[in-house]
Amino acid sequence: MDYQKILDEIYEETRPLLGQGRVADYIPALAHVDPKKYGIAIETLEGGCFHVGDAAVPFSIQSISKVFALSMVLKVLGEKLWTRVGREPSGGAFNSLVQLERENGIPRNPLINAGALVVTDCLSSITENPLHRLLEFVRKNSDNPQVNYDSLIANSERETGYRNAALVNFMKSFGNIENDVDAVLNIYFHQCALMMSCIDLAQAFLYFANGGRHPITQEQVISLSQCKRVNAVMQTCGFYDESGEFAFSVGLPGKSGVGGGIVAVIPKMLSICVWSPELNPKGNSLVGMKALELFTTKTGVSIF
Amino acid sequence: MDYQKILDEIYEETRPLLGQGRVADYIPALAHVDPKKYGIAIETLEGGCFHVGDAAVPFSIQSISKVFALSMVLKVLGEKLWTRVGREPSGGAFNSLVQLERENGIPRNPLINAGALVVTDCLSSITENPLHRLLEFVRKNSDNPQVNYDSLIANSERETGYRNAALVNFMKSFGNIENDVDAVLNIYFHQCALMMSCIDLAQAFLYFANGGRHPITQEQVISLSQCKRVNAVMQTCGFYDESGEFAFSVGLPGKSGVGGGIVAVIPKMLSICVWSPELNPKGNSLVGMKALELFTTKTGVSIF
Amino acid sequence: MDYQKILDEIYEETRPLLGQGRVADYIPALAHVDPKKYGIAIETLEGGCFHVGDAAVPFSIQSISKVFALSMVLKVLGEKLWTRVGREPSGGAFNSLVQLERENGIPRNPLINAGALVVTDCLSSITENPLHRLLEFVRKNSDNPQVNYDSLIANSERETGYRNAALVNFMKSFGNIENDVDAVLNIYFHQCALMMSCIDLAQAFLYFANGGRHPITQEQVISLSQCKRVNAVMQTCGFYDESGEFAFSVGLPGKSGVGGGIVAVIPKMLSICVWSPELNPKGNSLVGMKALELFTTKTGVSIF
Amino acid sequence: MDYQKILDEIYEETRPLLGQGRVADYIPALAHVDPKKYGIAIETLEGGCFHVGDAAVPFSIQSISKVFALSMVLKVLGEKLWTRVGREPSGGAFNSLVQLERENGIPRNPLINAGALVVTDCLSSITENPLHRLLEFVRKNSDNPQVNYDSLIANSERETGYRNAALVNFMKSFGNIENDVDAVLNIYFHQCALMMSCIDLAQAFLYFANGGRHPITQEQVISLSQCKRVNAVMQTCGFYDESGEFAFSVGLPGKSGVGGGIVAVIPKMLSICVWSPELNPKGNSLVGMKALELFTTKTGVSIF
Repeated sequence: MDYQKILDEIYEETRPLLGQGRVADYIPALAHVDPKKYGIAIETLEGGCFHVGDAAVPFSIQSISKVFALSMVLKVLGEKLWTRVGREPSGGAFNSLVQLERENGIPRNPLINAGALVVTDCLSSITENPLHRLLEFVRKNSDNPQVNYDSLIANSERETGYRNAALVNFMKSFGNIENDVDAVLNIYFHQCALMMSCIDLAQAFLYFANGGRHPITQEQVISLSQCKRVNAVMQTCGFYDESGEFAFSVGLPGKSGVGGGIVAVIPKMLSICVWSPELNPKGNSLVGMKALELFTTKTGVSIF
Repeated sequence: MDYQKILDEIYEETRPLLGQGRVADYIPALAHVDPKKYGIAIETLEGGCFHVGDAAVPFSIQSISKVFALSMVLKVLGEKLWTRVGREPSGGAFNSLVQLERENGIPRNPLINAGALVVTDCLSSITENPLHRLLEFVRKNSDNPQVNYDSLIANSERETGYRNAALVNFMKSFGNIENDVDAVLNIYFHQCALMMSCIDLAQAFLYFANGGRHPITQEQVISLSQCKRVNAVMQTCGFYDESGEFAFSVGLPGKSGVGGGIVAVIPKMLSICVWSPELNPKGNSLVGMKALELFTTKTGVSIF
Repeated sequence: MDYQKILDEIYEETRPLLGQGRVADYIPALAHVDPKKYGIAIETLEGGCFHVGDAAVPFSIQSISKVFALSMVLKVLGEKLWTRVGREPSGGAFNSLVQLERENGIPRNPLINAGALVVTDCLSSITENPLHRLLEFVRKNSDNPQVNYDSLIANSERETGYRNAALVNFMKSFGNIENDVDAVLNIYFHQCALMMSCIDLAQAFLYFANGGRHPITQEQVISLSQCKRVNAVMQTCGFYDESGEFAFSVGLPGKSGVGGGIVAVIPKMLSICVWSPELNPKGNSLVGMKALELFTTKTGVSIF
Repeated sequence: MDYQKILDEIYEETRPLLGQGRVADYIPALAHVDPKKYGIAIETLEGGCFHVGDAAVPFSIQSISKVFALSMVLKVLGEKLWTRVGREPSGGAFNSLVQLERENGIPRNPLINAGALVVTDCLSSITENPLHRLLEFVRKNSDNPQVNYDSLIANSERETGYRNAALVNFMKSFGNIENDVDAVLNIYFHQCALMMSCIDLAQAFLYFANGGRHPITQEQVISLSQCKRVNAVMQTCGFYDESGEFAFSVGLPGKSGVGGGIVAVIPKMLSICVWSPELNPKGNSLVGMKALELFTTKTGVSIF
């Protein structure tokens, strides 16, 4: 398949949509991004790399980081992780606190904020220097030693992240946070502030398309079973309150972030990352959603 | 692939699990089923039919009926349906009333009870004699003119279905039910009381595996887009509070019922129905879940 | 104290407020009442009767009826009633279904709709002809054999009372309703449709001001302990989401209805009923609340 | 009335109940109190002081401190306070987070934890050194310069107070906390750790019985209207999920704390404080509740 041609077509067809969404503005550092930035990158298991637009420009990956931390923790803890966080769709952001209250501090899945905070807490328990290790992890899997945290964004998150602080404290009151609250939040805000480009992310996600084994490093990052699990969780829970919509219109496991990035994989084939900072009302990249929908249409890839 | 051999293997490997689950007993008519009944049927798009055990014995399909009613309504109303019911996972049975209260009587998706009741209300609005038409629909698609309602079960549901009555009344108070409350409940309890065998259901589900077109009748039951939509909803919402688990362990669009039936499809290939009345604690057939997991393992079919 | 003079003053001072509230319009029968009707009546334990304005005009007492049904049921069931309904404030109308879901179908108190429906169910269990008996009860205590149900209003309630129907069905699903759902609703809608005047209600409430004994009939309607209990419940729960406000600004046990009536008692002294159909945003009579506040100010009566 | 005789009787009649409740053990510092401690003190507006048992032993006043902070804030902010906290019963501890989520971070009343934390935040905004000022306030009103914070308890609260931290952070995410989260929590945990005896508390509460004016200092601590407001809030919300029960069985405005103290006032007459550390399942002093019920029975004081 001529992926470059497909990317070019998608890029031209979707650019007119720029201007219709709204850049996340809850922290100044995110609000200052150029809303017209737009890039796409594809990496295939065979080593092909295709891209268009601002695919090499690093952006704040935000919630996409959740699946990296999840991978690191799953590898070490295995099934034990699931005693502290569920694997079911959450039914929307709206009820996270209600749900935590009813289910004794056990979040529904590792991709909602509460669940990701538990994963970060686990990461903190199993490594000496979690921020250093996470950086190693994403640098190795993206094959880019320049990947780094944006401290300005991390600190900015900290200053406004009262809801996340509420979640960690609330879960700690149920005994589901092991480490110091501020330490967990600090790691979490940094992981959200990782700066990566579409090319970095597409490459870093290749192991999700390859049964857990990274095709370039040849490392088994997570087991085949863990890979299927994370893909299943991404498909049912990866897009906040639009996961069902994404499952329908795109039909691929993937994860979005409020920085405007979306990464998805076609198992056994490829990974694809789109970035456009303008969000739709549900918090997903407006152009990114459309681009991925076009991609599945044009390639005829569909699981249904 | 030698489906018959695979079915025989699965059947032998899973029979020892009989006795570990619990037959639904909230209505006497369901509780009296023989817990040891167990059958599986596969129908391929090419016309192959394979089965084992009690695959020809009719059972109460319960919630599986929701996707038939949904198909009938989608065909007529199209996208208009989605103004009255959502398409996102619900985050568990537990909060249906809470969710309805917050979201002004709009259920999260058509496969939770509240959503299915709205669909039944729509069915009642668009046809003169909905129960007659539904019967025609399932008889035609299963190619079995013997399919019928079990009145005993339908009446039994009626006598204990106060929670469903609460849901309909509550949604009507929000203006999201058009027809008479008792009429809607009557249709709903009857549709749940449809008696079909594994063979009937596997055949009736073929259009979901074939882009909406039934390979035998050659009728386009629903459009390709509608078919993808229903499959996506089945995958993210088809198994109550175990949808995420099913997406991981089986990874196919499907629907279960408390009668112990589960039907799933492999798009472009086949449909498969398992029946074993004993349920796991989440309300899905215990042996059925295991049998489908084995099926995807043995065939190597996996979307992740 | 010169109650007549006080009433006359209050009447003059509050009449300018007429026109600022909004008549309940959820059923046509209620919406058609003349919004400018306004009356007040006082009955003292010594037999004094004072009134002003439209104090002799019957109106729909609506939720005020809840305390009559509660009295009848308490007298027969005594403490056993409290296994089926609580005695604590509910924290607002908004969460009645949520609360019922969490607390297994046991309403928080007998003055929210769910609790009143349980009381009506009890009334139905303990008497042969509850509507007849309730009529006897209010006729005797108001000393007015003309008191009757308004069938038009009762039927009107029935046609729009889906939320109440949802509550009864929901509680029945938890086993907390003994009788037929429709029968309970029919009684409930009729009791709400009782037509009584300010004079009727002030007289009928005298037993709440007199330790449970009606000073005119000399009958011990409920025991002293039960009387204290109902007064306590009225004070903490009698004004929907404005009970705290009423406790502060008036500070008397009382009960309001969406028909615009409010009855309150000063224990050991008197009962007072105000009627003005225009409601404030919380659903209590706007002029009625102000009139009662003035009454406590002018008489110097205050429990705090 | 011979208050001393009444106190002696109550003391004898209720001592057999010691041993039936359970000392609060969520922090070690509270758990170590002698469970058999038991004292009662009465102060009348005329200057009478009566006591029995351990009435002079200081204990951790916990939530009773909420009404002192509330008084200080009301005096300065007046009605403005009510834009940040409501005045209605909350319907139980259970739903505080749910309620906050629905009502945009505005707690239902100043006596639930969330509301008290907002009051503490206000106190922090209006004074330079809130902990110093609060100490001055309680020392002056109790006429005891020895009153102090127990740092051990305050720090202990801090180490386990994750739920309170969750509440403050959550409200801050809604913009309803002005000051630094840790600073607010530090003040709150200290105010809860005030050590006062029954005699101290009875004296400090006298202004609630006297229309806001302290009969000894002759200072108008809060206005008459504010006094009525606080009394109304204490009566409807002062006893957690047992406020309705207390309104019935005792019928006085009051406030309890998990340290086992309860203070109540009879407006225009007296204040009374009971202390017995063993709690009933709702978190109120078991013996204290019974003692106050007996007190109203024996004195014939009842508002109903």
